[in-house]
Order: sequence, then structure tokens, then C-alpha cells
Amino acid sequence: MNREQALAIVKQHLTDHRYVHTLGVVESAVELARRFGADEGKAELAAILHDYAKFRNKDEMRTLIRDHLQDHTLLEYSSELLHAPCGAYYVKEEQGITDEDVLNAIRYHTTGRVGMNLLEKVVFLADYIEPNRQFPGVDVVREIAKVDLDEAIIQALENTITFLMKRRQLIYPETMATFNDLITKQKKEK
Amino acid sequence: MNREQALAIVKQHLTDHRYVHTLGVVESAVELARRFGADEGKAELAAILHDYAKFRNKDEMRTLIRDHLQDHTLLEYSSELLHAPCGAYYVKEEQGITDEDVLNAIRYHTTGRVGMNLLEKVVFLADYIEPNRQFPGVDVVREIAKVDLDEAIIQALENTITFLMKRRQLIYPETMATFNDLITKQKKEK
Repeated sequence: MNREQALAIVKQHLTDHRYVHTLGVVESAVELARRFGADEGKAELAAILHDYAKFRNKDEMRTLIRDHLQDHTLLEYSSELLHAPCGAYYVKEEQGITDEDVLNAIRYHTTGRVGMNLLEKVVFLADYIEPNRQFPGVDVVREIAKVDLDEAIIQALENTITFLMKRRQLIYPETMATFNDLITKQKKEK
Repeated sequence: MNREQALAIVKQHLTDHRYVHTLGVVESAVELARRFGADEGKAELAAILHDYAKFRNKDEMRTLIRDHLQDHTLLEYSSELLHAPCGAYYVKEEQGITDEDVLNAIRYHTTGRVGMNLLEKVVFLADYIEPNRQFPGVDVVREIAKVDLDEAIIQALENTITFLMKRRQLIYPETMATFNDLITKQKKEK
């Protein structure tokens, strides 16, 4: 599937606003991939498809997780988390994407996971810093992203968890574990 | 063991500064117990003994956890977390305290846990708001503590997790789970 085909497919599944966001993620993901040495083609494809399931019916996604995915803990947390693992499932089943790197980058773009690989990190961070994003703290993360991929993700996770706690939202344990995992690795490298 | 006996025992194990802190926790714990209907005697005893192991040798405590306590995950996190479960162990073995409510209030006073009971909440919060504590956000928690025990703990957990993330410290998963547990119960009650 080339870039234009993939873009044409997701355009059908997204609002105009979300499609513009997706184009921003693609731009940032390719830039980050180049900067940090990830596969640019995979980064581009994963970024295009990352929100494929963003507007799927929530009950349909809950049923999918219950019936076809191993980890059901997600169902106890925010429904905003459903579209990432379900998106990975749908783009494989419906669009024939079989590259596990691309699928994992889609699967973990919202929650992160312990042991994220380079491509997953690139798509996760691109989703956070793409040019259309405007929220407190994003500019600082953009600056860090110019030099340190892990530290940028750590700062993004800190911002997101702090924001969610203030709003009395549940924190997905794997997201907190991702923060712990990255700062542990960072300390070992220093 | 009465109040004076317990105070005499912990005084030997604490610095002057920490003993003054302990007296503050006792004052706050008794006040919170009265306010929210916990057992005042147990709250007082648990508060007096809560930092019993604060200045024990860290390696000794790590060995204790490895050899005598079931959950070893604590060893992967901050050494500041060791003194609470080890304190519960030592006051039982060395001082003959067998009241499980008192032991659990000591055991979980730093990390919290999913399903905290009233006494555990009282001691956890007293440790955070006692009159000698001075840090950003503590006055807000003191005000909330006048009317809503759970919300005060939620705010204390939010403050602590935010502070630790800023300092790039690991977040103990059970502490995050305690936050999730309390806001879930809060939403159900509303």
C-alpha cells in the first residue's frame, strides 16, 4: 500500500479535523524517523493509519477486544484507549497490513508499553507533537524531541498523566509502567 | 502497649526531627479518626509506630523483604518505600503488636493500596497533612481533609505522583492503582 492509497483509505474513516491531525502526525513521524534512524516508510504508513479506528463504534470495539484480543484490562479504562489496539486489528483484517512493526506502532500509540521499539516511539511522539497540537507543555516536548527521543516521550507521559490525574481520570497502568521503563533505561545509560 | 510506652519506644528509633513529625502524625490521626469514625486508639498506636523502621539499615530491610515478605516488587522501587512494610514486620516481631488493623495501617502508610480501609486511610492522610509538613499543596489537602477523607487522599496522591514524575522518580504501581481505586469508588458514589 503506498502513501496515497493509505491516505485515501483513512480519509474515509476520519473527520476533516482528524484527517488534518493525521497529516501532521505523518509529517512529524517521518521527520522523527529520519532524525533518530527509524524506518521512514514504516513510520509514514503507521502514522497514516494510526487513527484508523478513531471513530468506530465503541461497543463494537469493546466486543472486538473481548472476543479477539488477549488483554482485556483495557476495558476497565477510558474508551479513548480502544481505538489503538482495535485499529491495529482492523488495518490487518480489512486492509491486509501484516507488518508487525507497523501494527505495533498503531497498537501502542496511545498507551505506550514497556519495551517500546524505535518505530513505536516515533509514532507515539509524533502523535503528541504534530504541528496542529496546541496544549500546555507541547512546545517544550517539541524542543526536547529535536535531541532526545526518550526524554521527549518521558515528558509527554508526565504531561499526560498529570493532566489526567487533575481531571480525575483513571491512569492506565501500562502507561505509568512505560514512564517507569523509560526513566529506568535513561538512568542506566547515564 | 499504652501511648507513653509506644512513644518511648519509637523515640529511641527516630531522630528528633522525625520524632516531632511522628507527634504531628499522632495528633492528625486522632483528629481524623474522630472526624471520620475510625478507632481512635488504633489510629493513635499506628501513628506512633508508623515510622518505626524509618532509620533501619536499607540492606537489612531489603533482605527482610526478600526472606520474609511475599511481595518482592517493592525492591525494584525507591528505598523510601521499604520502611513501611518492614516497620509492620518489626513492630510485630520486636514489640509484640498483633493487631492486623494497626499493622496494615503501618504497612501501607507510604504507598497506599487498593481497597484501603478507614484506619489505613486515616494514617496515610495524617502522615501527609500533619502540622509540621510544609510543601506546595499541603494546605489544600488539609482543607479537603476537613470534609472528605477519600478526596483528600486522592489529592495527596496526585500531588505526590506529580512531584515524583517531575523529579524522574519511579512511580510504584500500587500507588497509581490506589489513585485509580479511589476515583473509581468516588464516581460510583456520586
